[in-house]
Amino acid sequence: MTEKKGGKELVKEEGFVKQITPKSEDFSRWYVELIRRAELADYAPLKGMMVIRPYGYSIWENIQRLLDQRIKASGHQNAYFPLFIPESFLKKETEHLQGFSPEVAWVTQGGQEELEERLAVRPTSEAIIGYMYSKWIRSWRDLPVLINQWANIVRWEKVTRPFLRTTEFLWQEGHTAHETREEAEEETRLILEMYREFVETELAIPVIAGRKTEREKFAGAMETYSIEGLMSDGRALQMGTSHNLGQHFSRVFNIRFEDRQQQLQYVWQTSWGVSTRLVGALVMTHGDDSGLKFPPQVAPIQVVIVPISLGNWKEKVLPQAQKISSLLREQEMRVYLDAREEFTPGWKFSEWEMRGVPLRLEIGPRDVQNNQVVLVRRDNREKITVPLSEVVAKVHQVLTEIQKNLFHLAGQFQQENTCQTEDYQEFKEIIETKRGFLKAYWCGQTTCEEKIKEETQATIRVIPFGQPEGVATHKCLRCGAKAQWLVYFAKAY
Amino acid sequence: MTEKKGGKELVKEEGFVKQITPKSEDFSRWYVELIRRAELADYAPLKGMMVIRPYGYSIWENIQRLLDQRIKASGHQNAYFPLFIPESFLKKETEHLQGFSPEVAWVTQGGQEELEERLAVRPTSEAIIGYMYSKWIRSWRDLPVLINQWANIVRWEKVTRPFLRTTEFLWQEGHTAHETREEAEEETRLILEMYREFVETELAIPVIAGRKTEREKFAGAMETYSIEGLMSDGRALQMGTSHNLGQHFSRVFNIRFEDRQQQLQYVWQTSWGVSTRLVGALVMTHGDDSGLKFPPQVAPIQVVIVPISLGNWKEKVLPQAQKISSLLREQEMRVYLDAREEFTPGWKFSEWEMRGVPLRLEIGPRDVQNNQVVLVRRDNREKITVPLSEVVAKVHQVLTEIQKNLFHLAGQFQQENTCQTEDYQEFKEIIETKRGFLKAYWCGQTTCEEKIKEETQATIRVIPFGQPEGVATHKCLRCGAKAQWLVYFAKAY
Repeated sequence: MTEKKGGKELVKEEGFVKQITPKSEDFSRWYVELIRRAELADYAPLKGMMVIRPYGYSIWENIQRLLDQRIKASGHQNAYFPLFIPESFLKKETEHLQGFSPEVAWVTQGGQEELEERLAVRPTSEAIIGYMYSKWIRSWRDLPVLINQWANIVRWEKVTRPFLRTTEFLWQEGHTAHETREEAEEETRLILEMYREFVETELAIPVIAGRKTEREKFAGAMETYSIEGLMSDGRALQMGTSHNLGQHFSRVFNIRFEDRQQQLQYVWQTSWGVSTRLVGALVMTHGDDSGLKFPPQVAPIQVVIVPISLGNWKEKVLPQAQKISSLLREQEMRVYLDAREEFTPGWKFSEWEMRGVPLRLEIGPRDVQNNQVVLVRRDNREKITVPLSEVVAKVHQVLTEIQKNLFHLAGQFQQENTCQTEDYQEFKEIIETKRGFLKAYWCGQTTCEEKIKEETQATIRVIPFGQPEGVATHKCLRCGAKAQWLVYFAKAY
Repeated sequence: MTEKKGGKELVKEEGFVKQITPKSEDFSRWYVELIRRAELADYAPLKGMMVIRPYGYSIWENIQRLLDQRIKASGHQNAYFPLFIPESFLKKETEHLQGFSPEVAWVTQGGQEELEERLAVRPTSEAIIGYMYSKWIRSWRDLPVLINQWANIVRWEKVTRPFLRTTEFLWQEGHTAHETREEAEEETRLILEMYREFVETELAIPVIAGRKTEREKFAGAMETYSIEGLMSDGRALQMGTSHNLGQHFSRVFNIRFEDRQQQLQYVWQTSWGVSTRLVGALVMTHGDDSGLKFPPQVAPIQVVIVPISLGNWKEKVLPQAQKISSLLREQEMRVYLDAREEFTPGWKFSEWEMRGVPLRLEIGPRDVQNNQVVLVRRDNREKITVPLSEVVAKVHQVLTEIQKNLFHLAGQFQQENTCQTEDYQEFKEIIETKRGFLKAYWCGQTTCEEKIKEETQATIRVIPFGQPEGVATHKCLRCGAKAQWLVYFAKAY
């Protein structure tokens, strides 16, 4: 069903290829060039900071909307806590401070005065929220506290890359408090599952869910769970984390409640988040040499309508295009009618391909005559001629198919790039050449984990849920000691 | 139709009155006590900062949703610019720097290193956005640029009050660039009108729209327009501003475009914003001695359902209450069913009155028997018995009526507290005793404006649009020179 591109389109494609490094040639350059060229983001005149442009921000708005629905449906409420955290608060939890202090931006002056105490621009909000919870929580009747915040975060990163790691980023951070250890663990896992379902359904990115090792967990957490995606260069990306904080912060910030037996207890807490990094994941998972490829569910524009500017198209074609645009908009679809006169249809085709619009709708004088339009899918370039009367239904159907297909393709890629080995030499070779996920047995010792990282740059991404039978009959990949876990290794962002 | 409160409710009300200073006794204390008691916000452990709690944040979410729709419908797109602004950028526009530098929080350390240049935590974003626009705008075809951002802002304020003036607050800031002076002026006025319509329709707060004087305008603007509400203590509150920036920033940041005649020109800009201050405006406009009173359009909870806990209410009443709750939710209404067992219905009544829920729905064993419910309006305490079959339609109708009535009442108050005088002595007396808006003629001189402020604390809130005929035949309130404008004075927040 897939049609070959005509000569005209090919020329345009070549024109485009000249502008952006092909993905196959240099993935990193392709990534940053595409992000700027497609106007997702631009560099700010500050080290490691970016500006999220309207086209990129629109994806974040879609992510926010779709995830916020899920956060609220599971009983959480949004709130807003201060941007600044006094240094003394961060210092209260040593592990937490050590984890974050190399990355903190400090406010030392307010107006004309030097501050007596430095203020951290929040690198995460456990400390300030913990303090507030200690004021709000008195009794078991006040629990659980299920609060989320959408906010900006600052971490003074040395090496940055748009969306993936920037000095400032946007995220949501959930912070909950519970009566029992079990409830906190249940919440932590529930949220991880919410993230998995959200990322797979809406972003069309398949992920591996599991537990982080001691070495990789959040500074101050008892357990960290994570979902990990595999980008199309074979590197893993941590896409969301959910932490069971135990009583670490409640002991430090004295968050106590009177339990059902009138005994004072420390609450059990969780925290969890996803960030604008997800936009980078979309680029790296679905993009190709022609540019971006957005899943319809989060695409800024789902359908671009390009009227073919031949003859008296403004009288004959444009009104029809406008009518179709209105019809689709009425169905809540995100539509852009590109009626600009300064660009040719061919230029527009490759421009909107590059910018990742899932579906193009072409309409020319002959289509108007024949009461039809032509749909062109971004995912597989299939061309579909559709009678005018069926446009709305067909567009809806094709968008659903594209969403599914992108998830399918990414799943296929992940499968093809997931190996299992018990041979450390083979492990090194795969990591060096092909990358991808590598499943291997591990003794559970941090020293071994660190050696493997030193020697291969691969880290343990997760200890997946659902361990196979008889792990203990296997040996650790590196040291040969009795295996404790089957884990996923990868080079990661 | 309004029923007197029964003895039982009165007792509860008295119980409540003990907890919060009555509005009539001390407005300022009433305001801050109510905000904390109703859990809109709490003090953060940082000077001048607050935590917006879920109940308060929900109002901000409603404001965001309803305003964002309008911002997008008028062709604007959202984006996100960096939190930090290098000091050198702020210094480029002298007037702007002087206006903001006393209020800036400065980041001087990142990680372990001292920064070479101080970074301002954004007090507003004209400078950083201007810089980016200079990179993005090349031709008249790139114009207009219509961008908005939802963000947090920091201003190191000396005197603070929750929602009204805090060191950190949330807002939206629009920043646009245009081909001509006329288009920029048109945008500035269009946005002011959007704000007026939004605030009057959704927040039920009548406002006076007009132009600011030279003294009161935004640092760096050519013209500032504003909408001003009258709070129920007779003080004015600036609720939204729209600035025509002229070419001030485009000249400084070199934002130029090739016009239709291939000539390089500086763009014409605007900026505009409303903030979490609007939540404070809702409290101060509609609240009374019993507490908050939210307009249904932005109320966190529109209907609270209180089952009357008599006899075997859990079997007889609760299921009916749950059914009604579901029915209302299906109609997109924000409903809370308060089935808590540890509180009496009477306690719940006054609790939810205090928290400003527009409509209470009571249902007891007898109501279930009679297939009815009782609605109680927060605005006028009217009780309405409604057959079960009509509940959804009636609730919808009553909520619409409450929205209208709150706007009507606030309009009445504004009218009753707006005077006009040509006598400075009388002016002083009214400002001192009754406050409110005072319309008076003014010569247009800043010196006169400043003297009036010194002598009475009243400032010129706006020069309203639609000046009356023959202003020049009148004399300035203070100096007696020929009047140039009829203006609104008030003591303001």
